[in-house]
Amino acid sequence: MYLDIPNFSEIKRAHQKIVKFITKTPVLTSHSIDDIVGAKVFLKCENFQKVGSFKMRGATNVIMSYLPEQRTNGFATHSSGNHAQAVALAAKLAGTKAYIVIPENASEVKKNAVIEYGAEVVFCEPTEAAREDTCAKILEETNAIFVPPFNDSRIIAGQATAAKELIEEQPDLDYIVTPVGGGGLAAGTALAANYVSPTTKVILGEPENVNDTYKSFKTGKLTPVGKKTSIADGLLVSLGELNFRIIKEYVDDVVTVKEEEIVSAMKLIWERMKIIIEPSSAVAIATIIKEKDRFAGKNVGVIVTGGNVDLTALPF
Amino acid sequence: MYLDIPNFSEIKRAHQKIVKFITKTPVLTSHSIDDIVGAKVFLKCENFQKVGSFKMRGATNVIMSYLPEQRTNGFATHSSGNHAQAVALAAKLAGTKAYIVIPENASEVKKNAVIEYGAEVVFCEPTEAAREDTCAKILEETNAIFVPPFNDSRIIAGQATAAKELIEEQPDLDYIVTPVGGGGLAAGTALAANYVSPTTKVILGEPENVNDTYKSFKTGKLTPVGKKTSIADGLLVSLGELNFRIIKEYVDDVVTVKEEEIVSAMKLIWERMKIIIEPSSAVAIATIIKEKDRFAGKNVGVIVTGGNVDLTALPF
Repeated sequence: MYLDIPNFSEIKRAHQKIVKFITKTPVLTSHSIDDIVGAKVFLKCENFQKVGSFKMRGATNVIMSYLPEQRTNGFATHSSGNHAQAVALAAKLAGTKAYIVIPENASEVKKNAVIEYGAEVVFCEPTEAAREDTCAKILEETNAIFVPPFNDSRIIAGQATAAKELIEEQPDLDYIVTPVGGGGLAAGTALAANYVSPTTKVILGEPENVNDTYKSFKTGKLTPVGKKTSIADGLLVSLGELNFRIIKEYVDDVVTVKEEEIVSAMKLIWERMKIIIEPSSAVAIATIIKEKDRFAGKNVGVIVTGGNVDLTALPF
Repeated sequence: MYLDIPNFSEIKRAHQKIVKFITKTPVLTSHSIDDIVGAKVFLKCENFQKVGSFKMRGATNVIMSYLPEQRTNGFATHSSGNHAQAVALAAKLAGTKAYIVIPENASEVKKNAVIEYGAEVVFCEPTEAAREDTCAKILEETNAIFVPPFNDSRIIAGQATAAKELIEEQPDLDYIVTPVGGGGLAAGTALAANYVSPTTKVILGEPENVNDTYKSFKTGKLTPVGKKTSIADGLLVSLGELNFRIIKEYVDDVVTVKEEEIVSAMKLIWERMKIIIEPSSAVAIATIIKEKDRFAGKNVGVIVTGGNVDLTALPF
């Protein structure tokens, strides 16, 4: 189990390990967005990352942590989203197999992407239990190595590299805002800021509909939520235990946003910046717009988490 | 009248004149697109330009060509598209007024954008004659200066700066592909390549539905088309006279593409690169895909002309 809080060396080592397999994504700015928000906003564009999501960083860090001879039985995970694609591609780049358990109701686009990266797809009932059971069976049958989605030191260290790159390119950030789901990126970002730029505050944005991080942060007690519907489909999971430990200590605040605020932030970025961001990323933008006063006149970094959107089913 | 072929000095002077008013747009690449196309593709992202289009370059060059005391009566043009927004913003940056004649059936999005930049909008019947008459009346009443959309040396010199920047950043291009409508960008690109990188061939992409440049290029005689419907709404105008003179001499070939090829190229770029390109830009991408053999293994620059798309009326 990899459940210790990563130290700065571990994040630096993660970065060295993954750098040749990932894209150094650009940091974009927009006068038009700055005017609307009243702050100077720096978007770290992980929508331009391989597989269209920051998830490539953590998955690659886990897979490349193993020696080539340890990788021969492949890797496995269960996910209907970006983590699935990330494990599929990272395993391919490592020259080995990936087994991906996907709920049978996942979108065609996502299934096909995973298949395109050469992974073996195993379908299961769309429940958490079925996903875990099916994955456990595969691990037993194949001796593949499990790649956890977020509750893991190596995943957190990998995701931390996005904020590390952002701070290295833009050192004078007053805030970094990220969305929070399972908390891999959120925890990694908080650690990176703490190690590299301790005066930078980290704020998390979360859909009001899936406000487990908000509740956990405010009560100090890990509080999973039952109801899980949001257009921000990357954020429907509940916060991990290690992730919460880190967030509790290193995050400054958690802000929740409504569904319509997410959609309108998403449309704003598409229209003004001509980049495709997924609803989960729009949660961070909606957070800045909602909390204008807090961010007024400040330098605000945002991790744009991904750009995987079904173009035939847009919310506007 | 400004109807001489711009020389290299004029393009360099245009660049110096506009550089502080425009965005130096990035050049993006994508492994996934390269694999599909079978070439190394470099996208000069004018969709990230101010007003979301390369049109900002030419309009700014015209407007900044006048001394401040010559600008006091403002500038006028007729356009339902990106040129309207460009003149509106460039006039604003020059501290003067803009009068924009817009056909009353233009999209709300485009009307509002022009109004947002502080221009005075004058509506007219949606015919070429009504546009020209209305504009002529305004010029007479206000003594404003007309900013032509493409058939003008200064506009061509301004649009040429996009290819100039691209070549300066990526000097070893075998080809540059641009879409062609009125020919401001096409002519400017051909000149820039000729002056800065004479071994780079320039290929124009045009919708089969609006193939006046193709016909003119192949027959050697300027041949306007009557039928003008294409999803590439920026390319519905016929080629200008000066533009044709330049294209005839400096362009290597013109390729036409079908409507469905345009839509599918547009969707491909949105999905794989997570950037929003308008249908006119997709014409250039469709050209590369259609003529794969010609471009195989080559370094191919593409001017991504703009990103202004009505998100509520997508063709997919």
